[in-house]
Order: sequence, then C-alpha cells, then structure tokens
Amino acid sequence: MSYAILAASLRSAIERQDIDAIRQLVAEMQLADLAEFVQHEQEGTTLSLLDYLPLDKRANAFGYLEEETQAQIAGEMNDTELVELLNHMSADERADLFKLLDEPRQQGLLRRLAQAERDDLRKLASYEEGTAGAVMTSDYVAVPSSLDVATALDKVRHTGPNAETIYQIYCVDDEGRLLGTLSLREMILANPKDTLASLMTEELVVAKVDTPQEEVAKLISRYDLLALPVTNGGDRLVGIVTYDDAMDVAEEEATEDMHKGVSVGKIEGSLRSASLFDLYRKRIVWLVLLVFANIFSGAGIAYFEETIEAYIALVFFLPLLVDSGGNAGSQAATLMVRGMATGDVRTRDWAKLLGREIFVAIGLGLTMALAVSVVGIFRAGTEIAMVVAMSMVLIVIMGSLIGMLLPFLLQRLRFDPATASAPLVTSVADGVGVLIYFAIATAVLGLPT
Amino acid sequence: MSYAILAASLRSAIERQDIDAIRQLVAEMQLADLAEFVQHEQEGTTLSLLDYLPLDKRANAFGYLEEETQAQIAGEMNDTELVELLNHMSADERADLFKLLDEPRQQGLLRRLAQAERDDLRKLASYEEGTAGAVMTSDYVAVPSSLDVATALDKVRHTGPNAETIYQIYCVDDEGRLLGTLSLREMILANPKDTLASLMTEELVVAKVDTPQEEVAKLISRYDLLALPVTNGGDRLVGIVTYDDAMDVAEEEATEDMHKGVSVGKIEGSLRSASLFDLYRKRIVWLVLLVFANIFSGAGIAYFEETIEAYIALVFFLPLLVDSGGNAGSQAATLMVRGMATGDVRTRDWAKLLGREIFVAIGLGLTMALAVSVVGIFRAGTEIAMVVAMSMVLIVIMGSLIGMLLPFLLQRLRFDPATASAPLVTSVADGVGVLIYFAIATAVLGLPT
Repeated sequence: MSYAILAASLRSAIERQDIDAIRQLVAEMQLADLAEFVQHEQEGTTLSLLDYLPLDKRANAFGYLEEETQAQIAGEMNDTELVELLNHMSADERADLFKLLDEPRQQGLLRRLAQAERDDLRKLASYEEGTAGAVMTSDYVAVPSSLDVATALDKVRHTGPNAETIYQIYCVDDEGRLLGTLSLREMILANPKDTLASLMTEELVVAKVDTPQEEVAKLISRYDLLALPVTNGGDRLVGIVTYDDAMDVAEEEATEDMHKGVSVGKIEGSLRSASLFDLYRKRIVWLVLLVFANIFSGAGIAYFEETIEAYIALVFFLPLLVDSGGNAGSQAATLMVRGMATGDVRTRDWAKLLGREIFVAIGLGLTMALAVSVVGIFRAGTEIAMVVAMSMVLIVIMGSLIGMLLPFLLQRLRFDPATASAPLVTSVADGVGVLIYFAIATAVLGLPT
Repeated sequence: MSYAILAASLRSAIERQDIDAIRQLVAEMQLADLAEFVQHEQEGTTLSLLDYLPLDKRANAFGYLEEETQAQIAGEMNDTELVELLNHMSADERADLFKLLDEPRQQGLLRRLAQAERDDLRKLASYEEGTAGAVMTSDYVAVPSSLDVATALDKVRHTGPNAETIYQIYCVDDEGRLLGTLSLREMILANPKDTLASLMTEELVVAKVDTPQEEVAKLISRYDLLALPVTNGGDRLVGIVTYDDAMDVAEEEATEDMHKGVSVGKIEGSLRSASLFDLYRKRIVWLVLLVFANIFSGAGIAYFEETIEAYIALVFFLPLLVDSGGNAGSQAATLMVRGMATGDVRTRDWAKLLGREIFVAIGLGLTMALAVSVVGIFRAGTEIAMVVAMSMVLIVIMGSLIGMLLPFLLQRLRFDPATASAPLVTSVADGVGVLIYFAIATAVLGLPT
C-alpha cells in the first residue's frame, strides 16, 4: 500500500482514538513510512506512536528519523528509557544519536552502559563528521582465516543477529588485521571442509577511517560492493560501511553539489526545518561577493559611456547578451563539474574537451546570433543588429570556455571544482561580455564626434 | 592498490609486450578498474585484454563497459564468440547488450540460443527504456512458500550460482504470484523445520514493470532494500532490481537533474564520447528560446529610453541588478527542485516554504542593497545609489519568489519541476528586474523635462 493511503488511515485512526487500529497500522507500516509520518505530525502523538512498536523495531525506526526529531524525542525520554533504546540500536546509528546529546547527558548515559558498548560508542562518536569513521558501523562479522567453512558458518549464526550484514565476512589475523574477504554466498556454495583462507579474495577495496565519505560512496558504487571494510592506521579492521548508508551519502553529496552549483553553502538536515538565519547565511556570502565582482562590468560600461550616449538602443540588448554568456557558461561548467564528480571526466581530459567545447560553442554562438539579429533588425536597425550578432557569437564562445575551463582550473588549484557555480561563471562572463559588446559597438559604429 | 598505479603498471607491461605481467595484472585488477582501462585505451589492445580473463569474469567485466565500447567489441566478435559471452552474462546485462545490436545480428544470435534463454532475452529486451522492466534481471531465487527452511536452503544452493542475489528469497504460489519475501539471513538463523510461509514478511515493497526507474531507485533507497521485486499486470513475479543497479540509476537521475538545472537536455552515455552535434542540440533549444523571452526585457528598457538618456549612469548597474535577481532566483529554484526530488519537500509544503522564503529574501535583498549602495555612492552619487539600492531589494525578493514558486507551479501543471532551470528563472527575473529598476528610477529621479 502506498504511503499516502496508510498515512491517511493512521491519521483518521488517531483522530478516532482507535487504539487497535493504530496498533495494527503501525505494525504493518514500513519503518521508513512510519518515520516520515512521525516527522510530519510531531504534535503530541510522536512518542506514543513509536511506543506501539516492540523495542528492536522502535530502535530501528529511530534511525529513519531526522536528527532534529531524534534529538527532540530523546530529550523527552528519561535516562533509563534512552539507555534501553541505545542498546537496541545499531552501532553507527547509536553513535549518531549520541552525538546529538549535550555533554552532561552523554556522561550520564555512558555510566549506564556496559564497558564494551561504552568503548565502542566513544570510539565511533570520536571520528570527524564526513569521514568513513563517522558513517561506518562496528557491527560486522570478522573471523580468523584459519577456520573451515562449517565452523565459520556457525560463528556467523552466532553473531548474526547483531551484525549489520552477514553477507560479507571479513577474515583477520590474531592482531585484527584484515587479510581477505568472502561472501556468505561463496561460503554456502563451498565445501564445508574448505578453509576460509583458501576461498577468500585478497584483492581488497578498503577505506581508511579518515577517507572522505563521498570517496567511500564512490568506491561502493564503482565496485558494486555490499559493504566496504574500514581500517585504522595499523591496517586493523575497525568497521564497515554498508551500501544503504552509501546510498544516503551519495544522495547527500549530490544535493551538496547542486547547491554549490548556485553558490549555496552546505545546509545541515532538512530544508523544511533549517533555521531562517542559516538559509540566509548559506546564500548571502557569494551573492554579496558577486556584487563587488560586478564592479568590473560597471567600470567597463562607464569606460564606454560616450558610445552608449550616442547609441542608446545598445542598452536594449545589454541584459540579453550578458545573460546569454552566463547561461552558456553555466551549461558548460555544470557539464564539467558533474562529469568530474561521477568520474566520467578526468583532469587529464581537459585538452580534448576544450577542443570539443570550442566547436560546440561556435555552433551555439552562431545560432543565437542568428536569432538575436532577427529581433535586432526590427528593434534597432541593421547596423546595431550586426553589432549585437557579432557580440553574441564572441560572448557565447567566451562564456562557454570560461565555464568549461574554470572547474579544471579549480581542481588544479586543489579547490572543489563544484565551486565553479552558475553565479560565479555569470559574473566573470558578465565583465568580459560588456567589454566585448561595447568594444565591437565602438569599432563598428564609430565614436560620436 | 589504487587504479592509477595499476593502470600505469598495465600500460608499461603492454608496451613491453610482457604477457605474463599482463596476465597477472588483469587477474588482480577489480573488473571495474579493468573496464575503465579498456575504455581509455581502446586502440588495438581492447579485445585482447579481456581475453586474458576466464569466460565468466570476462562476461562480468563486459557489464562495466560503456555502451559504445560494448557495441564496438561485440561488432568485432563472431556469432559463436558472442553467443558464448551472452550465455555467461547476467540476464539484465545480456538484454542491455542485445539491444545495442542491429536487427539481423539479433535474429542470428537468437537462433543460436536455447529456448529458455531466447524467451527470457526477448522479454527483457522488450521493456521500455527507463522503466523497472528495462533495469530488472530475471536471475532471482523464487521458491514455493510451502517449503521448509532446510529444503529451501538446498534450492538456494542449487540456483545460487546463476542468481544475481541469493540474499533475498521470494516466495510464490503455483501461478508464480508473489506472496512474500524473506532474507537468507532470516533463513540461516531460523529453525530448519520451519516453513517459509511462517517466516516470510507479507508487507511487500513492489514495483510494476512499467514503474519509472527513478521511482525504483527511490524505493530501494527509502526502504534500504537489497533488491526490489518487480511484478507484471497479473501480480506475477517477473524480475528483481538489485541495489547496485539502483545506485547507478540514482547517479544517472541526479546527473540528469543537474543538467536540467542549466537547461541541458538528456545526454546518453559519456560526455567524452557524446557527438558534438548531440551536445549542441541538447544545449541550444533553451538558449534560443531565452533569446526570444528576452524581448520583453528589451521592450521594458525601450519604454524607459528617456530616463536612461537623462541618467546614463543607471546603465552601469543594469547587469548587476539583473544578475542579482537571477542568481537569488536560481538559488531558490535549485533548493526547491532538489528538495522535491529527494522527498524532503512535498507539494503540500509550498505555503509554509513561501512564508519562509519571503523572510530570507528580504534579508538577502537588504544586505545586497547595502553592499551595492556603498559601491553606488562612489560611482554615481547619492540619488542613483538610492535608486539602485531600492531596486536591489525588490529585485532580489521578486527573483527569489519566482525561483521558489516556479517548481511548485510546474509540478502542479504536471511538468517536471527540474525544468525550473537557472536560465529560465534568470530570463523571467530579468524582465521583472528591468521594469522595477527603471520604474523606481523614473519615480525617484523624475522624468527629464
């Protein structure tokens, strides 16, 4: 059943105070759907809805909630309830929730946890946000590579209920160093007497605890992994990142890149719940910088003041020309930035792509010049139409090349290429566009005497 | 080892013609890495490199290649070699490769396949691009729900080698209708005597063969599924989509949305290999439309010709004001479009978000007005600086509201909200911006008499 139908039924059951219906709906709903419902109907019913779930499912559902909602519900629970919940959560989600609490609460909770959980939680919560360490879980299955398949399968059955995945098994030595990996599928299809060492693959894809999370997501996607092992400085296995967390990271990173594309800084959490000041702050920085960058195009115009005074009709086409350069440039920049993000375009491809972009840009420029000259002849006569058309060709070519090269240049200077945003390209293309336009106008039409 | 190092070793081994080193490197490399190498060094060595792999791995590596490369290599193989390769590929990748071939070749190959493979291939290849049917595979494990766990596990061992995943098992009735699902993990941890019917979950997340692929990827990501079952009109299970294919689809969809954000149409395959004409065609349509849309801002300027003639300094600030409205509008549009794509923002949230956007836009407008008035006083005196500052506030607010509301409006009219691109918002904001600016100028400065 779709979310909308279930949500409507649940809403009506809550209005009717029909406890049995609520209980049944909550039990039937997918946890992700229940979490969305809780998210959108926070007034009063929040806590009680999750209470209808058995503890392990409740802990599971918690992981689907947004951080603000998690923090809010945790704030309403007493320490005993919260410890019970934490004990049933997976290690990575437990650490995420823990990090949302304030220092005194954290200390109080740590005292109530068993030694093993306490150490694990402290360690997981200590990794820097945005790294493999911060997204990994310590609930994985690690076995000595000397075991045979039958013994290892028993061990999997034993640790299974608590592991995040049992489908990828990691073989380690006495010191906990990662030696190899094999899938549960390989184990099930193998001879029970074989040793893991004879079956495991030693060509490993591994991340370090400080590998950036977007790198982690890319590795999992590139190599079609179910889980990526994470090691510390001493090559000891300390965690795994599973594909479902990688999918969330990839979505988060794509969102961040799209926001960067229009010069919007990173917004934590949901757009609906972000504070107004945060939204303002994440948007204003570049907008104001661009005001000052625009001084150059203003100065360019001032330099050609006499030409403009003599041919006021030139002004009609100014916004159009300036925008066209910016638009073509934004297109080129976005194509490159995204290509670089997905690995389709590599830095070494820049010269080849430059050659291609020149041809495409000439085509774009000529077509747009044709379009604008039709408009121009009717509005301002042949001479000005010619100036506008010539300017259009050059401005579109310049804009496209600026947009295409900027991401490579940024990458080269070790900045994030995604910083080559539409507003930045637009501002640079503007200044150049104004100069091209009025220089051509002055040359073709002649200065007034 | 990283791709760069392995690729360098392989390149040097090929130059030295060191067959043993090549063989060893090819055997050690991850298939995705080998595929990337083949992709980038297509001259001559392509076919021979894949030939170093055993047939099953070769078939697997094939799935990592871009479509153009697959088509090229398939073109160089004779029918016998190609049939052998097809027989070892997974059902979904086989169908994808098959679709790249021309009609006579397809017919020739079909004749050489066994009946079962032939029917399967025909069916998979017949689904429309971009639907669940076109990305699903028919290599799944389906068992009668009446079996007990031990018998079912035997069956899994039997079909295991050919299935895309054995970690999710689907229970069907005699007619092949999907009844429920359980994970291999649940089976392994269960009592071997239990029947599947008693263990399976009947709350299913299912796609239809014609469900759009982005919907499929969203379901897999939302519910953290390993695989999503796909049914036909009669609720019969006909395939599954696995998480790794969903990750590829999600990446593809994010790329498409980013391209739409700058009015670039859908580009098939890689940016490096796309034809110049295709790149031109995908970029020109909106750029030219926007030239004509710009007639309105041109007309706006013409209407205020006298004001401009009297106060030529107004022109200095025209590109800046016009861009600022476009930039703020693009930010708002991108935030909304992405929020709607990820499910963070729902259509019903529009009124709430409008209220928030108004506040943020006022803040942005006032700050930018302050910045521009500093610049303005130095360049053009107090009066014009005041006009520019007042215009800036209004233009940024109008631009933001246009950018924010356009995606909702498009959604309402059943267009893709991602069509609310930066160039479109910029063009609309332009016309409005020009009118606001010169209307305020005329009102404040007075018409020349």
